[in-house]
Amino acid sequence: MGHAELRLKKNEDRRLRAGHAWIFSNEIDSEACRLTDFEPGQLVNVLAQGGKPMGTAYVNPHSLIGGRMISRQTDVELDKSLIKHRLNIAHGLRKKLYGEGACRLVFGEADGLPGLVVERFGDVYAVQASTAGMDVRRDEVYQAIEELYQPSAIVSRNDNPVRKLENLPVESPETVFGALDGLVEIEEAGLRFSLDPLGGQKTGWFFDQRPLRERLPAYVDKGARVLDLYSYLGAWGLRAAHAGADEVLCVDSSEAAIAGIQRNAELNGLSVNTLEGDVMAVLKELRQNGEKFDVIVCDPPALIKRRKDIKQGKKAYRQLNQAALQVLAKDGILVSASCSAHMPRDELIRTVQASARHVDRAAQLLEIGGQGPDHPIHPAIPETAYLKTAFFRVLPSW
Amino acid sequence: MGHAELRLKKNEDRRLRAGHAWIFSNEIDSEACRLTDFEPGQLVNVLAQGGKPMGTAYVNPHSLIGGRMISRQTDVELDKSLIKHRLNIAHGLRKKLYGEGACRLVFGEADGLPGLVVERFGDVYAVQASTAGMDVRRDEVYQAIEELYQPSAIVSRNDNPVRKLENLPVESPETVFGALDGLVEIEEAGLRFSLDPLGGQKTGWFFDQRPLRERLPAYVDKGARVLDLYSYLGAWGLRAAHAGADEVLCVDSSEAAIAGIQRNAELNGLSVNTLEGDVMAVLKELRQNGEKFDVIVCDPPALIKRRKDIKQGKKAYRQLNQAALQVLAKDGILVSASCSAHMPRDELIRTVQASARHVDRAAQLLEIGGQGPDHPIHPAIPETAYLKTAFFRVLPSW
Repeated sequence: MGHAELRLKKNEDRRLRAGHAWIFSNEIDSEACRLTDFEPGQLVNVLAQGGKPMGTAYVNPHSLIGGRMISRQTDVELDKSLIKHRLNIAHGLRKKLYGEGACRLVFGEADGLPGLVVERFGDVYAVQASTAGMDVRRDEVYQAIEELYQPSAIVSRNDNPVRKLENLPVESPETVFGALDGLVEIEEAGLRFSLDPLGGQKTGWFFDQRPLRERLPAYVDKGARVLDLYSYLGAWGLRAAHAGADEVLCVDSSEAAIAGIQRNAELNGLSVNTLEGDVMAVLKELRQNGEKFDVIVCDPPALIKRRKDIKQGKKAYRQLNQAALQVLAKDGILVSASCSAHMPRDELIRTVQASARHVDRAAQLLEIGGQGPDHPIHPAIPETAYLKTAFFRVLPSW
Repeated sequence: MGHAELRLKKNEDRRLRAGHAWIFSNEIDSEACRLTDFEPGQLVNVLAQGGKPMGTAYVNPHSLIGGRMISRQTDVELDKSLIKHRLNIAHGLRKKLYGEGACRLVFGEADGLPGLVVERFGDVYAVQASTAGMDVRRDEVYQAIEELYQPSAIVSRNDNPVRKLENLPVESPETVFGALDGLVEIEEAGLRFSLDPLGGQKTGWFFDQRPLRERLPAYVDKGARVLDLYSYLGAWGLRAAHAGADEVLCVDSSEAAIAGIQRNAELNGLSVNTLEGDVMAVLKELRQNGEKFDVIVCDPPALIKRRKDIKQGKKAYRQLNQAALQVLAKDGILVSASCSAHMPRDELIRTVQASARHVDRAAQLLEIGGQGPDHPIHPAIPETAYLKTAFFRVLPSW
């Protein structure tokens, strides 16, 4: 018995043939089959209008993205065996990059496991299923991880609101295997960080910025004054302190994050100042006090979460970068990031450029990078490239 | 006595106000002044249509880019004193990054010295003037370098055909100060390279790929087989050998480059194979022989040199990447670069993705970077961002 068939409308196989993995619900030939006849997460064989088989997908009748391809072959089972196979492929890349160290082990579509994110913190694994297709297979995922990696604990992080787009409940994080003894500790380029896999932001740690953080020391001169905005657990700020900064000020609105920074500073024998507060309010006060920083890292949460917020969100990026520039030293470095997929890379560059002009400064774009290689981009799915981090040098106007 | 005035047509000051530095010849109000009344390289005060001063530019009546801004102030002199000042600002950044080591010291517009490129190889400097504004001031540039850096030699590299766009002669490289004793040696991340400042390709060395080359070792496993296409002096290939590759094959069509690779291999006590020949022909032969490589670096010269060649050039990138994929191992790394400003970043990604689909492979985009920070991008002048280098992992189709 093969999978049920899902037939596409005429020409709607084009994007799939080019390598994309998503089937939008309005691309399905509803005369041949109805998405609502399928169960959330059910596997189907996808056919082009003319009957040509495209491969296997899992479907969700309650999502705009009605199906996600898991193979170019038909009748493929997304069972524990295939999940283990794909975990091995994903692991192969991370091993090359980070040995058995902490990393994002699986990043959805590009790793052939759409809707799945797995973080590895030593022998603790955090798992997030953001689609019905993965949600219904969560036990197979946990078992695959157990069998491959002998974890001490697996936690589920199904608290991401994106699950609502798939009609899935937003759940509280919990330990689903083994036992988790509070915090875990990871190592990043010679520094140690402790974090909370159950209570931390997102899935606990932002591995995506790791290679970009490793570029920071090149720009931090001995004795520099550094401002780390939205600092979370201090990954940027402590990197700057380690690089020889004289003074580092970390700003975050979360009390737990501030406590985490101090804990991580102690772990590394480093010293940073912390300020709990709203970043825009803090920037205003710093400006009023005439404070200047040689290096400013501005790494906010996504300021554009949904397409309809693009206009408002762009304005927010503009205001934030402008406020940051107003406390940047005469020949200073601004590291400006956006993790919103709705904020294009060129728009971030234009935003900083316009902000610099506004305060009569000349900007040089030194480097701009994206999410690290343990968050591979699916080159046919631009939506999988979300992070942009730009290093600017900002001078007086020529 | 101030500079002569150059008045723009209505609204043609907008791009300048946004920070751009170029004035196209058709943006000039020819009723108020004629570009042909000015000498090539002459300084002018630029005025908006309504008379608002925009700053100082140098002009060239024989170029489509009729003027380039050098300051937001009027009546600024582009003399030795200003050139030294701007060299100092440019040097400040490179010092942070590379100490007093080899680097691109000046990269045109973003460094406030439009039309000027200066490379530093130890105490030898290579200077290229690509605009009339810089060409008429070459002696001031050489003097500024002499006074600031006590060079042993300065060579002029005015052999770049882009000079024709400014009605400037394409000259033979020559030593314009001091004495150059054949080759010079530079150091890059622990490896030594000797190069020829007078006879080498472009200005002698491709510093622009340096930070990207430093990413290569992460992807070269011990025992790997590596193919370096368009290898020039072996900067990628020797990096791979140094990282533990078992076998490295460097391919270049230039006899001098091949000799240079062997010289550089010896300098570092490394061993690589070299093949002098046309890359496409070599790839065909490798494929026929069933050869496979774990890592392939494909870093061609600009395959799109002029806007009118875009269609043909895109096809050339496609053919090249496809041929490379055909000799890439089952789970291999393809490093694919384009230094053509006419090949957008997203187009390079699409090209490799389409090539991978064509041979029924799945690609993961691991990282994509641009020219190193000693080639700063002017964020208001997209044309100053020209290099794209993408690291792909290429797997069997899912």
